[in-house]
Amino acid sequence: MSISSQSTICALATAPGVGAIAVIRVSGPETFAIVNRIFKGKNLETAPGNTIHFGTIRDGEKVVDEVLVSVFRAPRSFTKEDTVEISTHGSDYIIRYILRLLVHQGCVPAQPGEFTQRAFLNGQFDLVQAEAVADLIAADSEAAHKVAMNQLRGGFSRRLAVLREDLVHFASMVELELDFGEEDVEFADRDDLRRLIYDIQDQLRPLIDSFESGNAIKQGIPVAIIGAPNAGKSTLLNTLLNEEKAIVTEIAGTTRDVIEDVMFIEGIKFRFIDTAGIRETRDVVEAIGIERSRKAMQHADILLLLHDNEEDRAFMENLAQEVPESKEIIWVKNKIDLRPGERPAAGEEDIRISAKKGLGIDELKKAIVARTHKTGSSDTTVTNLRHYTHLTKANEALDEVLNGLGIGITGDFLAQDIRLALHHLGEITGTITTDDLLANIFGKFCIGK
Amino acid sequence: MSISSQSTICALATAPGVGAIAVIRVSGPETFAIVNRIFKGKNLETAPGNTIHFGTIRDGEKVVDEVLVSVFRAPRSFTKEDTVEISTHGSDYIIRYILRLLVHQGCVPAQPGEFTQRAFLNGQFDLVQAEAVADLIAADSEAAHKVAMNQLRGGFSRRLAVLREDLVHFASMVELELDFGEEDVEFADRDDLRRLIYDIQDQLRPLIDSFESGNAIKQGIPVAIIGAPNAGKSTLLNTLLNEEKAIVTEIAGTTRDVIEDVMFIEGIKFRFIDTAGIRETRDVVEAIGIERSRKAMQHADILLLLHDNEEDRAFMENLAQEVPESKEIIWVKNKIDLRPGERPAAGEEDIRISAKKGLGIDELKKAIVARTHKTGSSDTTVTNLRHYTHLTKANEALDEVLNGLGIGITGDFLAQDIRLALHHLGEITGTITTDDLLANIFGKFCIGK
Repeated sequence: MSISSQSTICALATAPGVGAIAVIRVSGPETFAIVNRIFKGKNLETAPGNTIHFGTIRDGEKVVDEVLVSVFRAPRSFTKEDTVEISTHGSDYIIRYILRLLVHQGCVPAQPGEFTQRAFLNGQFDLVQAEAVADLIAADSEAAHKVAMNQLRGGFSRRLAVLREDLVHFASMVELELDFGEEDVEFADRDDLRRLIYDIQDQLRPLIDSFESGNAIKQGIPVAIIGAPNAGKSTLLNTLLNEEKAIVTEIAGTTRDVIEDVMFIEGIKFRFIDTAGIRETRDVVEAIGIERSRKAMQHADILLLLHDNEEDRAFMENLAQEVPESKEIIWVKNKIDLRPGERPAAGEEDIRISAKKGLGIDELKKAIVARTHKTGSSDTTVTNLRHYTHLTKANEALDEVLNGLGIGITGDFLAQDIRLALHHLGEITGTITTDDLLANIFGKFCIGK
Repeated sequence: MSISSQSTICALATAPGVGAIAVIRVSGPETFAIVNRIFKGKNLETAPGNTIHFGTIRDGEKVVDEVLVSVFRAPRSFTKEDTVEISTHGSDYIIRYILRLLVHQGCVPAQPGEFTQRAFLNGQFDLVQAEAVADLIAADSEAAHKVAMNQLRGGFSRRLAVLREDLVHFASMVELELDFGEEDVEFADRDDLRRLIYDIQDQLRPLIDSFESGNAIKQGIPVAIIGAPNAGKSTLLNTLLNEEKAIVTEIAGTTRDVIEDVMFIEGIKFRFIDTAGIRETRDVVEAIGIERSRKAMQHADILLLLHDNEEDRAFMENLAQEVPESKEIIWVKNKIDLRPGERPAAGEEDIRISAKKGLGIDELKKAIVARTHKTGSSDTTVTNLRHYTHLTKANEALDEVLNGLGIGITGDFLAQDIRLALHHLGEITGTITTDDLLANIFGKFCIGK
């Protein structure tokens, strides 16, 4: 990584496409020397940090663009290296031209995430914060934004740091015992250690548990509409989507090929899972349609059980018996416009709608939002699979420590498990890293970040 | 226009979409006061111009983003007003959030081109230069970039200014004569005036004539492939397009619905016009296919006459008789792979290709580029229809002056025509403007520029 830090890198930092302006970022030891060779204006070598200079980018005598150049002097920059941001006119032609000039003058095109990676390597922030940069950019809902911002601001990192600190102290004590070999001293009080581990696990568990809802925040809370083929599933979906049209987006998942319908209701992201219709005839109970709906139920957090008659409802009630308690079920009675005189039965809790006429949709949306697991405060929400994995492994290692304490295991084995727990906590914030890990994390960033 | 200048406007200045960073621009008298209310960091009211400050955008206590704020103090900014550029993480959610905060604090969402319009109204540059900003952003070839950059740098404006200056002097002299009423004095020497107008027209004409090639630079030089239905037109087009695939774009014209095939060869933009095949049977000579090809010929600068046998060639030779001399004709013999033993006839100048096998394509491309009218130096190239119209009208008014001088017309009529010529020259650079004109020009800009 020291090799990459010696090069001077460049990339477009703003979104591609036509805009009023675009920003090209250059970072590394040769930044000022390289940009000076194509910039006619202030001598950047002598420009103070955090200042802006008007001038022109030249290719020999040819003026490529009139630009503003922002100067950041190490360590007061995002990467903590000498950095220049060139604010150009937002034309693809100009952007490509200037990048070409920079490369000719000795810049290396930046790898995805390389600016953020350098910021991490140079101690600007830890790994959790670096990852939060990507999450923040991808955040498309209030909840996702809140989680990412808290991570970026170091909230999650501070919590982990506190957990590690106490554990490091105990690990040292236990390891000190080992130095005394056969003397059978105990610097680390076993009861204190047990209490500490209980305490740490009390904090780890909510973090681990929060992953499911945290992931839902990022990906959208999965909702399945289950019902007979003619119950109006598609109509309901279209009605919901149309109402939220202005903020509806289609996301093509990065890890799956299916394009799902995503919508935001009250700032919360919901992801609707396609389900095949349940057959209404009982004699084909085991048909493929049921199997599909079962699968959808497994992947959904919220189930909308849609029906328009008592027979279908009764049939679905059987199905609903199998649904785990963790799923939220909302019974929805559709096509109420076809039965204008009908009143809800006593005790009936079904939400009554007409997907076609748009009746009852607001009430349904409120019910969906109400059934959303409140994801708690953002400093206990884990959205990153890598963090989740290490938290789980740290927790398991602490279980081993407790086991060992229970059976009076020797200090060297205890120390080994404590170190393992510390290792996993450390991997999260990047106290411990490998090149592979970094390549894996930053490779998912966009170029220019 | 003074009203709009009193408001403080805001808009996203970079391309929409996900990027590492995005830039939000705020301009107007309340800029520092408004941004101060949502920015926690340096007090912007006291920050020196052309400096950059790290801090956070807040919505109450909530941190919306960590940002860099660039401060520009009037008149040292693009708009010549107090301006702030907020460099945020490139997330749609954050961008929308911050724009909403700015509007809540009193900003007005900027109209398309409003920043550039303010720059123009505040004397940053003239109208030609303002228009060049949009042209520069849209420029997608070396030639288009060169023309726009020359306009932005004021090359064209300076030429017009020189033309106007001499004419203004004469107009004043002629008008002075009018003050003396019946005394029949001549302050303006008529021979000098005639020489001046010859001189000015000598400079106007190449500008006017350059419009056609200038327009071709912007839109792409139109090329039509003409030939019998089975001559291989589509195959040739596909072969050309595939070869240039990496840089091929499809442009949807702003003023037409047809999507044409555009490609760049050696940095020059070519636009291929769809043509129907010419029927090869002579007895349906007047068929609709011929009519269509005739039309294509009218709109093309370069014609590729494609054939694969002598009969078709002979037929097209008749057609070629009608083609105006200003069009460039390239004869292309296709399907040479089917006649491996065949040698070119003595004196045959057809370019021999096999569109299917990719033979001779390089030679054909070289021929196309060679037939491109060299558009001369960029300071004589007019690409803007508005400029072209006013140059033509100025030239016509000067014709009237010459006519008037020829028949010994009185000073007041002379002065009127000279003023008309001046008016048209002045409209180009914006010395003379109307609100309608400005709305028309800047309305075509993107928002944020």
